Amino acid sequence: MPEQPELTIQGWGPHPADGSTDSTGDRAPALEATLPKAARRHLARELGWTPRRTPPVAVDDIRLTPSRLPDAARAALAGVVGEENVRTDRESRLRRAGGKSYLDLLRRREGDASDAPDAVVLPGTTDETAALLAVCSEHDVVVVPFGGGTSVVGGLAGVDPDDRPAVVLDLGRMASVQDLDVPSSLVTVGPGMRGPALEEALGREGLTFGHLPQSWEFATIGGYAATRSSGQASTGVGRFDELVAGLTLATPSGVLELGHPPASAAGPDLLGLALGSEGTLGVITEVTLRVRPKPTTTAYEGWSFRTWAAGLAALQRLARHDLLPDVVRLSDGDETRANLLNAGGAGARMLRRMLRARGHGEGCLLVVGWEGLPEIVRARKRAGSALLREGGAIRVGRTVGESWRRHRFGAPYVRDSLLDAGLLVETLETAATWSALPTVYDAVRRALRESLTVSGRRPLVMTHLSHGYPTGASLYFTVLADRDDALPIQQWLGAKRAATDAMLAAGGTLTHHHAVGADHRPWLEREIGRLGVEVLRAVKARLDPKGICNPGVLLPD
Amino acid sequence: MPEQPELTIQGWGPHPADGSTDSTGDRAPALEATLPKAARRHLARELGWTPRRTPPVAVDDIRLTPSRLPDAARAALAGVVGEENVRTDRESRLRRAGGKSYLDLLRRREGDASDAPDAVVLPGTTDETAALLAVCSEHDVVVVPFGGGTSVVGGLAGVDPDDRPAVVLDLGRMASVQDLDVPSSLVTVGPGMRGPALEEALGREGLTFGHLPQSWEFATIGGYAATRSSGQASTGVGRFDELVAGLTLATPSGVLELGHPPASAAGPDLLGLALGSEGTLGVITEVTLRVRPKPTTTAYEGWSFRTWAAGLAALQRLARHDLLPDVVRLSDGDETRANLLNAGGAGARMLRRMLRARGHGEGCLLVVGWEGLPEIVRARKRAGSALLREGGAIRVGRTVGESWRRHRFGAPYVRDSLLDAGLLVETLETAATWSALPTVYDAVRRALRESLTVSGRRPLVMTHLSHGYPTGASLYFTVLADRDDALPIQQWLGAKRAATDAMLAAGGTLTHHHAVGADHRPWLEREIGRLGVEVLRAVKARLDPKGICNPGVLLPD
Repeated sequence: MPEQPELTIQGWGPHPADGSTDSTGDRAPALEATLPKAARRHLARELGWTPRRTPPVAVDDIRLTPSRLPDAARAALAGVVGEENVRTDRESRLRRAGGKSYLDLLRRREGDASDAPDAVVLPGTTDETAALLAVCSEHDVVVVPFGGGTSVVGGLAGVDPDDRPAVVLDLGRMASVQDLDVPSSLVTVGPGMRGPALEEALGREGLTFGHLPQSWEFATIGGYAATRSSGQASTGVGRFDELVAGLTLATPSGVLELGHPPASAAGPDLLGLALGSEGTLGVITEVTLRVRPKPTTTAYEGWSFRTWAAGLAALQRLARHDLLPDVVRLSDGDETRANLLNAGGAGARMLRRMLRARGHGEGCLLVVGWEGLPEIVRARKRAGSALLREGGAIRVGRTVGESWRRHRFGAPYVRDSLLDAGLLVETLETAATWSALPTVYDAVRRALRESLTVSGRRPLVMTHLSHGYPTGASLYFTVLADRDDALPIQQWLGAKRAATDAMLAAGGTLTHHHAVGADHRPWLEREIGRLGVEVLRAVKARLDPKGICNPGVLLPD
Repeated sequence: MPEQPELTIQGWGPHPADGSTDSTGDRAPALEATLPKAARRHLARELGWTPRRTPPVAVDDIRLTPSRLPDAARAALAGVVGEENVRTDRESRLRRAGGKSYLDLLRRREGDASDAPDAVVLPGTTDETAALLAVCSEHDVVVVPFGGGTSVVGGLAGVDPDDRPAVVLDLGRMASVQDLDVPSSLVTVGPGMRGPALEEALGREGLTFGHLPQSWEFATIGGYAATRSSGQASTGVGRFDELVAGLTLATPSGVLELGHPPASAAGPDLLGLALGSEGTLGVITEVTLRVRPKPTTTAYEGWSFRTWAAGLAALQRLARHDLLPDVVRLSDGDETRANLLNAGGAGARMLRRMLRARGHGEGCLLVVGWEGLPEIVRARKRAGSALLREGGAIRVGRTVGESWRRHRFGAPYVRDSLLDAGLLVETLETAATWSALPTVYDAVRRALRESLTVSGRRPLVMTHLSHGYPTGASLYFTVLADRDDALPIQQWLGAKRAATDAMLAAGGTLTHHHAVGADHRPWLEREIGRLGVEVLRAVKARLDPKGICNPGVLLPD
């Protein structure tokens, strides 16, 4: 297995240690080295924020309580996977503590690792995983499955109402291709495999999987399955859950082999119960995915709409005729302005001037990407572009598309620098039908603004639509505000609560691709109803009778 | 609501009563009026079958035991829906007895209606349905939901291990459009609505749903959802289950509102539990479907391959490149020969001659249909046709495609005439990955042949591939044999058992679109595992604690 980058303990990283900044790999470069001056001035003006240095505590100063794993449990776990795969050292526990939400980072930056597991255990096979679950059931030890550790909704919270000891099951050893059935376009992989390694293995056969979320370098196939991930090309390629043809779920009650490609009418869909189960029913130990030939043509380009409403209307028309590009990303006015300022350079200045000249000065940029066979791409692109023009869009060329593509995984890295400079930075997302989308957009923005506007300081809310469906689309909100250094957690919890209430009331779903985790638990009943929650509880009771599987997430207490 | 045709009590029908045959609507025309002479001679030669007259008993002679519905239960049911919607008359009970499998028809033709319900109850709303379920729970009355009555797997068996009284919940009164959200391409309808009525309502808005199973004139939206139906254009349009954006399930424990279009990552998929639940968890009372604009171009045509293997290989290549037509139907040699003989006429003779001249005399016909926007259809058809040619196919023109299209719903009508002439006629189906498909095809045919070959009589097994996916395809087998008039049920049960065992052993799924019903129950555990069955039981126990919901199907005893 090639060397893979690891996330830093207190942020996203690793950051380039190039000498031009104070970056040392773990530490983010200063904001001055990350954002152009115009962008920083724009932020200061919008937010009423004064740039300041708010670095995290040193990693050595993070507080970690001693492991509570009982000796008997430890011995039994080691009996399954060997001593070397049961780890209780400080570094292992810190690196597997929680995920990468704003709240996670706030805690870690303040030196709080109270959510760290008591041990990290590394199974090598499905059988070992099942045996570990049996041991943990017997010894009343909570189990949190861990893939890439990139959850932004508290999916790795490890919080247990009964406060039992907790181990993280790190799936990093189960990261290889198990089977490749080229005629059937199916690959079976271990849950710990990451996207880049998968693409490398498939690329040798002229194949691709094509799932590209922002966490691409770190997140794992098992994690995508457990959370119903979607990626930047999901409009064309499909959501991750649509691409899963089968999976193996090890549970405390035994092993489930789910899915029967290509399709089956043999009763209710149990595969769909495992997808999105977030570790609450067991541990995903193998995933079979649909792959495809590498696209022979890719064409990325930018378009501009005068207004957000015009952009939505045009994309709805494309969606209705099944003409949405494989990648589609419409930024609202606030996000477009920020992106153009962030881009900096002469090209961006020229683009801004051109857009102003054509009456799109306050407009909305759209990035589209077409991928596939040349003759099909050509026909779809021609028909799609005609509809975009009819909808009032002007083409702004390939530079915008290619530039987005180059920076597509960049935002979480910049977040570390923003956090170091006294800012609140978080994202949230939803999806709604085309009919409900404008209302959801307005409601969430209003709620965030009202909650985060205090004595002259106000938030910047930037939004894009990034996954289109025939029936609707997702919305992704990025929030920036001057951080309340006294009560930063409460500041965000209040805004999150207001935004989520507003989102659901307007018809949006609780989450389009971030999952439920600990953070969205209080709203699950509003999303699926009390009886829906009861059905999930019944399934969990059958598979995990002692409730050891990731008790802190998904299901409300 | 326009007048809708009703299935006959002992067969498919209604048949044309045109005077040229002995047909009177309920009775099928004689085989001489249905199949050309060459086709009948082919059958006699292949099967070792002597045509004979084996008509069903008169409908008046069908044996029906008196209703066992207790008066108290009847009164309580009538309290919910009114006296006029609780029916115990002979006609109502006979018309809602069982489905339309070969076994169903054998029983009904012999005068056996022991599976008839004790009453037929017609709810008008979700609330009424929920109230009826509560009444039935209280009075220990089994509930069998009834849509079109077209199940071919014993989905309406109504068999209860505890032999409690049973009512059919006929959903025919809940058959209207509840909501049409044109911008979001979503329509919400009652479960009793049939395809033609839905298409008529959508057509007025320039929309279509496009689900076209062979049972199209009779089957209902609720039935499609409960059984995970697929249709003749599902390769392009999608399986029915993929087109359900939401549904309402009334259960004895309350009402579930499932699905959140366009997509959600809020935990496991409960909608997928209701789809395919076959009435065992409750009654589907509302379904929200994704619709699309009516295609502006449709192009149907025929192709021929020299061999089945060449046809499979070519379709696999199209599938891999996402170039499968919207309709794709590859017949094997046995089915191709029979279809050409059935077609009769000068056109079919010319076609046979042309195919022989080009070395395709023993070949396999492929029907393809392209639908959609003209420019997209053109590009896809050109690229797909190039791959077909590279795979050795020759184009045989539009007549074959259009002829198939005209007769696409015809086979079940012909079955009645075949049954009247002493034949066994049944179909079965599966799906498998492209890699497993050839093995599954061989195994099922061999099992059917071995089971049904007795003293010089042997079956004719005709097969087609009719739903292509990137990862595999479905196979549909039609079996004809000289009926064993002494033990017809045992004759078929033996063949079905052998074929199903062989299918599963070779890697096929238990069913691709017929569902589980009573007939496939014994194999469900082999399909989803013992723990999988236990999970379904846990869900059922939560929603239907007294086990009144369609106890005879899906879950093994």
